[in-house]
Amino acid sequence: MTVHEPTAPTDPRGGRPVVPSRSLHRPLGLGEIALGPGFWEAMQRTNAAATLGHCEAWMERLGWLANFDRAAAGTTGPDRPGWSFSDSEVYKLLEAAAWEYGRSGDPAADRAVRRLTARIAPAQDADGYLNTCFGHPGRPPRYSDLETGHELYCTGHLLQAAVARLRTVGPDPLTAVARRAADQVCAVFGPERDTGAGPAVGGHPEIELGLVELGRALGEERYTAQARLFLDRRGRGTLRGDRVPSGAAYFQDDVPVRDAEVWRGHAVRALYLAAAAADVAAEQGDDGLHAAVERQWARTVGRRTYLTGGMGARHQDEGFGEDWELPADRAYCESCAGIASVMVSWRLFLASGDMRYADLMERTLYNVVAAAPSADGRAFFYANPLHQRAAGAAGDGGGVSPRAETGVRAPWFDVSCCPTNLARTLAVWHTYAAAAGRRELAVLQYANARIRAELGDGRVFGVEVETGYPADGEVAVRVTDPPEGAAVLRLRVPGWAAGAVLEEGGRRRRAGPGAAVVEREFTRGEVVRLRLPVGPRFTWPDPRIDAVRGCVAVERGPLVYCAESIDLPEGAGLDRLAVDTSAAPADTGDGRVRVRARALREPGGGDGVLPYGGSAGSGAVEGGEPVEAVLTPYHQWAERGPTAMRVWLPAFPLP
Amino acid sequence: MTVHEPTAPTDPRGGRPVVPSRSLHRPLGLGEIALGPGFWEAMQRTNAAATLGHCEAWMERLGWLANFDRAAAGTTGPDRPGWSFSDSEVYKLLEAAAWEYGRSGDPAADRAVRRLTARIAPAQDADGYLNTCFGHPGRPPRYSDLETGHELYCTGHLLQAAVARLRTVGPDPLTAVARRAADQVCAVFGPERDTGAGPAVGGHPEIELGLVELGRALGEERYTAQARLFLDRRGRGTLRGDRVPSGAAYFQDDVPVRDAEVWRGHAVRALYLAAAAADVAAEQGDDGLHAAVERQWARTVGRRTYLTGGMGARHQDEGFGEDWELPADRAYCESCAGIASVMVSWRLFLASGDMRYADLMERTLYNVVAAAPSADGRAFFYANPLHQRAAGAAGDGGGVSPRAETGVRAPWFDVSCCPTNLARTLAVWHTYAAAAGRRELAVLQYANARIRAELGDGRVFGVEVETGYPADGEVAVRVTDPPEGAAVLRLRVPGWAAGAVLEEGGRRRRAGPGAAVVEREFTRGEVVRLRLPVGPRFTWPDPRIDAVRGCVAVERGPLVYCAESIDLPEGAGLDRLAVDTSAAPADTGDGRVRVRARALREPGGGDGVLPYGGSAGSGAVEGGEPVEAVLTPYHQWAERGPTAMRVWLPAFPLP
Repeated sequence: MTVHEPTAPTDPRGGRPVVPSRSLHRPLGLGEIALGPGFWEAMQRTNAAATLGHCEAWMERLGWLANFDRAAAGTTGPDRPGWSFSDSEVYKLLEAAAWEYGRSGDPAADRAVRRLTARIAPAQDADGYLNTCFGHPGRPPRYSDLETGHELYCTGHLLQAAVARLRTVGPDPLTAVARRAADQVCAVFGPERDTGAGPAVGGHPEIELGLVELGRALGEERYTAQARLFLDRRGRGTLRGDRVPSGAAYFQDDVPVRDAEVWRGHAVRALYLAAAAADVAAEQGDDGLHAAVERQWARTVGRRTYLTGGMGARHQDEGFGEDWELPADRAYCESCAGIASVMVSWRLFLASGDMRYADLMERTLYNVVAAAPSADGRAFFYANPLHQRAAGAAGDGGGVSPRAETGVRAPWFDVSCCPTNLARTLAVWHTYAAAAGRRELAVLQYANARIRAELGDGRVFGVEVETGYPADGEVAVRVTDPPEGAAVLRLRVPGWAAGAVLEEGGRRRRAGPGAAVVEREFTRGEVVRLRLPVGPRFTWPDPRIDAVRGCVAVERGPLVYCAESIDLPEGAGLDRLAVDTSAAPADTGDGRVRVRARALREPGGGDGVLPYGGSAGSGAVEGGEPVEAVLTPYHQWAERGPTAMRVWLPAFPLP
Repeated sequence: MTVHEPTAPTDPRGGRPVVPSRSLHRPLGLGEIALGPGFWEAMQRTNAAATLGHCEAWMERLGWLANFDRAAAGTTGPDRPGWSFSDSEVYKLLEAAAWEYGRSGDPAADRAVRRLTARIAPAQDADGYLNTCFGHPGRPPRYSDLETGHELYCTGHLLQAAVARLRTVGPDPLTAVARRAADQVCAVFGPERDTGAGPAVGGHPEIELGLVELGRALGEERYTAQARLFLDRRGRGTLRGDRVPSGAAYFQDDVPVRDAEVWRGHAVRALYLAAAAADVAAEQGDDGLHAAVERQWARTVGRRTYLTGGMGARHQDEGFGEDWELPADRAYCESCAGIASVMVSWRLFLASGDMRYADLMERTLYNVVAAAPSADGRAFFYANPLHQRAAGAAGDGGGVSPRAETGVRAPWFDVSCCPTNLARTLAVWHTYAAAAGRRELAVLQYANARIRAELGDGRVFGVEVETGYPADGEVAVRVTDPPEGAAVLRLRVPGWAAGAVLEEGGRRRRAGPGAAVVEREFTRGEVVRLRLPVGPRFTWPDPRIDAVRGCVAVERGPLVYCAESIDLPEGAGLDRLAVDTSAAPADTGDGRVRVRARALREPGGGDGVLPYGGSAGSGAVEGGEPVEAVLTPYHQWAERGPTAMRVWLPAFPLP
């Protein structure tokens, strides 16, 4: 197993994006976990080798980087290119490069950090304000459009980038920039701003996340206090929602965060806000606030979440739908919402140790986060529908896509939030794989890895994980550094893994779902072995999800599968395929899954006749031709060119 | 039967919004048809008594009328209220009042026409340009935003209003205003405009309709030629589509109208364009263009149309979805798109005599057009979904709705295109009820009516229609003025009316679907009787419509029915109701329908558990409590207050 050792960590426990002051579990640092070859390590390498440079090149080409030069030189004006939030893409790239340097020690990533910092820093005003879109000659005044201007949002990303650098190499020029920017926000939006005249929050939550984490990293509690102010002001209808269809809910300004029952409105906004609320709750020991986020998570997961873990059912307003409104074809499932959902669940896991949060993270990581980038790391899905009716046009993949829905991965978008968000997320994937409790090591995501964690009680617990997961369900955890005395090794058993088996200490037993827990003294070299049943299985929807009634999906381990039009026999359109659920789905041996199906006869009617009539079309199944359909992991869809695709397939007979 | 005689018709055959120079059928004029009491006559009365004044009052209140005064006085400026298309609402109201005066002779309607004309006319510039949003000091220059500025769109509505006045009372001051406005458009957008530099069409089709009809009314072929120029220029990608998700298709600027296979993009735009193409095809004898519109109609009806006749599956871009993308909950089915669909089908019927067009008109009139206004004519649905998951808030009904989706009818909208569009459509409903062929009278929509039509061969054919339709299926057509010699009486038999029976001349026979045709000499006083089976029936969707798989709808005659939450027993949520299709639906006797159903058990899972699992939830049906559900005509939904509602209901057993 090849393991990269970071070259410049300041603290072996450093290098994590989220470090709550109080939590049941502590995320591992740079020096505590390193991945070996496998699904996620390959994605991390592609991210480092391709995506980071790809993002920087596009932002240079489009002038989003030069916006900083122009702001610094006083030459910006009405012709500034990019949306108001383009600065944030630069900051997310900077954050990604900083984490990547921490992870791999790759000098190219370090150079990227220094190069970007050198462009950004000079654009900061004397009072700490830093934004290329507002507050310059020929540009709108500072904070003149809190609803849609994204100034505070951009600043939040700047702070997160600074935290990444701070936690991997220690204080550097970016730290000072971030500190001054945070101070400027506190000065303008402090308690004296609560005059009741107009909004005093940003339309897109994010500043809160940046403030809390910079506060944690620098020990500045007033940043957390400012984040709390922003949280408490929200939900009181101060933002003008009259120009968005979902109104104040779009900004989560309809109900205070601690009163809300479910996530609603713009999905990324809702989830960034929830993550920040979990952070503030952790810092201030606010159990009520924490419970509110857990309650919203539970309701949203139970009624507003896709099989892939994707969130956001509406293209309109990029938003959550109502309960049970989960259309497969118009699923928005924005890549950034998947990332944001992982951020929320991670914080809830750290606070509670509840494996359900890690379960949802896995589902979302494999079926949203991993689905978004192309295999070469140079093109991306913005929306991640579960049904593509018509194959995208190959030509859509050429340049800047003006649209979120493309049908093929696009190299860049007019609104290009996902590439850099994916970059920063993949760069820290390993930090989600395990966590340390007071006297336990919890392994949460399975990948080849070397872990050497300091437990809460100061002891060290080292293991090496070997697995072919997710293709293979066997996970071997070899103890390399046993802690002295009894300790706990907790291995997550996913909710779908009924029948999982744990072998340890010469015994074999059923485990989970939830977790397989071994609590005893450990011996150097011993192996704890978890066997997860990753064979293909049918999955059925709750009957209240109208959009996929009568349909079945196929999953295999943590992976959701899909049918693609190029795999169907000639003439068997994806809109006429029905799966025979009396035959179990079977492995093909190459990571794909075979199901028995029929190609329905073309129903009667036709052009000019309304597609409704006095008899149901289910007779079409009986007359259909038997076909064998091969399904592909959803995260690979459209990798072989534009295809029509569907995750949910009409089923017969219904069980 | 009370029949209003118009007081000032210039020609008994006048008073119709659409008068093709060439067509198989000629629409009847003011003096040729008058409705008696019934469904539509009641709506026409409410329209006259309430809606016209309601619209005028709102437009006065919001300053949309004063915009004309300010433009005339030179005092308009950056603070002009209303969207760029607010002028068109005034014109549509004017058109509605003009038709209403023609229909009823109500002096109040005539006064409204004069009052509105007196406000509008002074705002016209010396060269004929007339628009309150562009071309004034402090406003953007004329035609500086062809994509979204709606100037040509507004002018089109002005011309249609002038046609209404011209065809009901003859030339009046509005005629001159319209002529000068049309001439100005021709001067600016004539053939010399085809320079290839930028667009030379308006983003929202409508000018074409106005030009053709004004051309017909005034005998000015150059207006038709200008409409043709606009049609021919479209579909060549000259409009900038990069700021709308559906791109150039949004404006139908992706494919030339004669090459397109199906309607796509913004639904109202697509349908106004198709109606104009049918008009131009009729005027110029362009069979290829006509065939293109028929082909698009057929494909769209077969794959992109709701059970209600509604069109437009997406809130985003107010647009058509892909084939089979017909979600019930997010159905947009804009009221104006329903009206526009009626406009297209009417033109296709007149040209072809094909009853399928009149069938779709009936479906759309009863289930979209009649659904939009409240019973009192003072509130409206903008979108007409087939499933409302959560009841709207009663408070949403109070003022100007910023949103299209309200769940309750709203008195006015920020974008308030539907109230005035409904007003002008209801005012001419009777003109859709029958048509004259060369030697035939075709009765298309059933209502109590007195018809005395001049056939194409100059003979007169008079009948009186007596019916309780749609509640009752018996239609008695009493011949009052038989033409001399043999003639044809053609009675539409709707596509759903399998088993219809015709009684005439002492015989009784099966009729249609399509039409019941009686060709012979007629006798004064004889009665031709059509019995349409309007009893309640189950209707099933094509299995390719994913959104309603496994569901059934209930129809009764031309009416689509729906379940409303207030009619359900306590605890039987609309999201857990399943209809037992082994028992036929039954009349309740008060216009509603009773079905046998079960209230499904609450499935397992719950908050915090993803709504997907290893077994289907269909077992929930067996354990469900039997309930009786009473369904209401869809056009009445939410009339008793905000409710959750659904047209498509999960069904068992599936036939």
